[in-house]
Amino acid sequence: MQINLNRQSGVPLVRQLYQEMADRIRSGLLEEGAPLPSIRHLSRQANVSFMTVVQAYELLEQEGLITRVQGKGTYVRRTNRRDGTVERKDSGYDWQHTIADYLPRAQFWRQLQQNTLPDTEISFSLISLSPDLVLQLDWAKMMQRIVADDPAVLFSYGPVQGDAVLREAAAVYLRSFGLALRPEEMIVMNGAQQGIDQVARCFVGPGDTVVTEAPTYSAAIDVFRGRGALVRSVPVDEEGMRVDLLAAMFDDKPPKLIYTVPTYHNPTGTVMSARRRAQLLELAESCRCLILEDDPWSEICFGSKPPAPIKSMDRHGHVIYLKSFSKFLAPGCRVAILAATGTILNRLAAAKALTDLGSPLLTQRVVAACLTSPLMNRYLRQLQTELRKRRDRVLTLLQRHASNKVRWTVPQGGFFLWLTMPDRISADELLIAARQRQIDFLPGSVCYPGEPEANHLRICFSNAEEAKLDEGISRLCDLIDESMERAPHAVRPPVM
Amino acid sequence: MQINLNRQSGVPLVRQLYQEMADRIRSGLLEEGAPLPSIRHLSRQANVSFMTVVQAYELLEQEGLITRVQGKGTYVRRTNRRDGTVERKDSGYDWQHTIADYLPRAQFWRQLQQNTLPDTEISFSLISLSPDLVLQLDWAKMMQRIVADDPAVLFSYGPVQGDAVLREAAAVYLRSFGLALRPEEMIVMNGAQQGIDQVARCFVGPGDTVVTEAPTYSAAIDVFRGRGALVRSVPVDEEGMRVDLLAAMFDDKPPKLIYTVPTYHNPTGTVMSARRRAQLLELAESCRCLILEDDPWSEICFGSKPPAPIKSMDRHGHVIYLKSFSKFLAPGCRVAILAATGTILNRLAAAKALTDLGSPLLTQRVVAACLTSPLMNRYLRQLQTELRKRRDRVLTLLQRHASNKVRWTVPQGGFFLWLTMPDRISADELLIAARQRQIDFLPGSVCYPGEPEANHLRICFSNAEEAKLDEGISRLCDLIDESMERAPHAVRPPVM
Repeated sequence: MQINLNRQSGVPLVRQLYQEMADRIRSGLLEEGAPLPSIRHLSRQANVSFMTVVQAYELLEQEGLITRVQGKGTYVRRTNRRDGTVERKDSGYDWQHTIADYLPRAQFWRQLQQNTLPDTEISFSLISLSPDLVLQLDWAKMMQRIVADDPAVLFSYGPVQGDAVLREAAAVYLRSFGLALRPEEMIVMNGAQQGIDQVARCFVGPGDTVVTEAPTYSAAIDVFRGRGALVRSVPVDEEGMRVDLLAAMFDDKPPKLIYTVPTYHNPTGTVMSARRRAQLLELAESCRCLILEDDPWSEICFGSKPPAPIKSMDRHGHVIYLKSFSKFLAPGCRVAILAATGTILNRLAAAKALTDLGSPLLTQRVVAACLTSPLMNRYLRQLQTELRKRRDRVLTLLQRHASNKVRWTVPQGGFFLWLTMPDRISADELLIAARQRQIDFLPGSVCYPGEPEANHLRICFSNAEEAKLDEGISRLCDLIDESMERAPHAVRPPVM
Repeated sequence: MQINLNRQSGVPLVRQLYQEMADRIRSGLLEEGAPLPSIRHLSRQANVSFMTVVQAYELLEQEGLITRVQGKGTYVRRTNRRDGTVERKDSGYDWQHTIADYLPRAQFWRQLQQNTLPDTEISFSLISLSPDLVLQLDWAKMMQRIVADDPAVLFSYGPVQGDAVLREAAAVYLRSFGLALRPEEMIVMNGAQQGIDQVARCFVGPGDTVVTEAPTYSAAIDVFRGRGALVRSVPVDEEGMRVDLLAAMFDDKPPKLIYTVPTYHNPTGTVMSARRRAQLLELAESCRCLILEDDPWSEICFGSKPPAPIKSMDRHGHVIYLKSFSKFLAPGCRVAILAATGTILNRLAAAKALTDLGSPLLTQRVVAACLTSPLMNRYLRQLQTELRKRRDRVLTLLQRHASNKVRWTVPQGGFFLWLTMPDRISADELLIAARQRQIDFLPGSVCYPGEPEANHLRICFSNAEEAKLDEGISRLCDLIDESMERAPHAVRPPVM
């Protein structure tokens, strides 16, 4: 465990140390029962006083994350034991705890692991399409044609920047969204996640500041924290990121990168207005920073089209644009496009070479075939209609079953909505109960780079079979009601 | 450009600063004509004295890498201009030079770019198989079966750790190499390059020491340098890495990671003896460090089988084993296996989730189908026979055409051999001339983490059509002869 403290950030060291440990425990990177470093060891390693470590450990104990055993040491608490005690044997691999890693947080990995739990009957957590939605495209025939046309796709390396056929197809496709990009400006990624990771790898390091929306996509926080960055956040309202607050935050030292999901924002589903998009770009220009614009699902709109991407206004190469083809098309192919200009592009291409020499050719050709398929337009329209129907169903169900103390967003596109419960209810605790009733969702707490707000949750309506939406939403509302009855007034103490 | 100096390394700061800049220029990360920071700016940024910067810039100028223009500033030298002067207009993106990146070296990217130059008729540089060698497997039929069996491979996310079918197939396949790994211990990577990158991302950071062979795989150096590590190296002899020297190097501070290609070592082609393998593991156990064992082509053996992998002796989880299926099977699929134990495995799996959520399912199934194909054994035997024939042909040709001052290794497997010219000949300069005659090779200089040895080159015999080997080797030997005539005594001055 490599402890990464930022002494210029203005955040107290106790708080930072607590956060480093808490994130690792909550992500499962420090396993239940694992021994923690002694106070002496940690104070030397992190270069802080004994008292700082003692206070951080006290906070962790208050939060129920660790257990101190008199005369033995400090351990990650076992949640399945009443007293939280530990009982473990050396597996022969215990020496490995001395190998420090550079992964401070892996909430997304944790979620993925939990998503694969076999007993979840109705899943509102994972953003993917149920098979009946995707099977409309004629996959098998497309595949056959690709291999027949050019069997070399299987056994030759493609260009590091990506297959020319795909980049050409993507350029044509994106033009219909008001975005004129040249194929030479694009790098093919193994999904949007790799795009975020590549940008971080290239341009984010210890001491840099990255700004995200709060809440935001949890895996983006993981990635930026993993680069040692200070991640600061700006709230979101019905017009998207509060750019006005952002400007005030950086009078002194500007951020290096602003990460945003402007259209059908993850996880709230809101759309950044055209006005805010222009302001954000102007801000980036004035403080010479980069914007990473993550745009995975702007084609899934339920009514009027969202404003054009920020990238479409970018004249000086401030915006790195990231387009996933996983969400609405072919998740199994792991294909996305990252677009940038100037030396930013070259440096990202160099990073891609070092990361994996380039993406597989075969899957790139599959996505290219989809994008240019005559069925594509009809497919997208069907998807919009179908997802809109599901959204409406979920909204109706919430109106019917949810307590009047619960609020939710009404997304105009995308795959999910954001639900807010009274302050005293923790979605993390609710999730434990939900899993026992075979449903799940994304707890909001993982979506905050700093102090988490625990009373939100994200409901994704694309994944569960349509027939199960009724049952799922009604079970969820019951659970919320029960929580509210159990904890009518209790307020969780703030951590610091 | 983020300058990363290590004040504990014992390497003079001038030398480190020179290396950081020289690597960026040689990799093309700093483009020809690009402006370099002023002495004042760089001394502040890197926290070194003016004099240190002045001396580093002097070294860069001596090496012909930069040009200073009186009253204007310092620029990366243009090699295509006699006087090295610069003449450029602001493209509108010049502000991007103020965005520091964390890519100190990208020699491998540079090589990949040069490999795609259209005018190379006979390539001895890229390690890949010529199509006539691979087409023997019945790719099209395998593909059809995969998609027919389970169309969901195209539109569902696979598990982060990789497809179970592939991991099971890999476990069976590796058993025939004396390696008993469980599918649960494996993580599927997008090619071996991603494996190296993931290990570095997890366990290597600023202040850590990584040991490699010298020479070694250039992209591994790029990756470890990119993590801010100090990369130290140990020479290779006919028994592989000099483990005896390694032990002596680390009396005080042990390395965090040892990176090795023990079988048909890249780039020399030598095999680490069983004795050295055992010693290396013992050393890692005694100093509690990790070994990354990169094993891309041990199946391509020309005579007796190489010793079993180091991983086969590993009882306490010190060895991370990396098996590429790109080199001998399906480069276009980008599939490799990374195997580890204990918390090392968990942390690598978490990193894979953050990197790209997991590899594409389709290409994993293609590789699984190959590994379990009844044609596989015959295919491997044919490949061995064919590559051995090519090796023998190259050896015969070298004996016939090469000067008696040139030496080369006789590899017992793999794809290439290592050629050593007299000290005064630079393979980098030779390569410029070689490209004019439509041939290329890998210059040895990029394979050294520290001071490069310039008089080596790697000849890969798998890629060029067999019929062209004669012409290629004879052209290469002519070029070497010409270089030796031109520079009968000249010795390049050492950099410091």
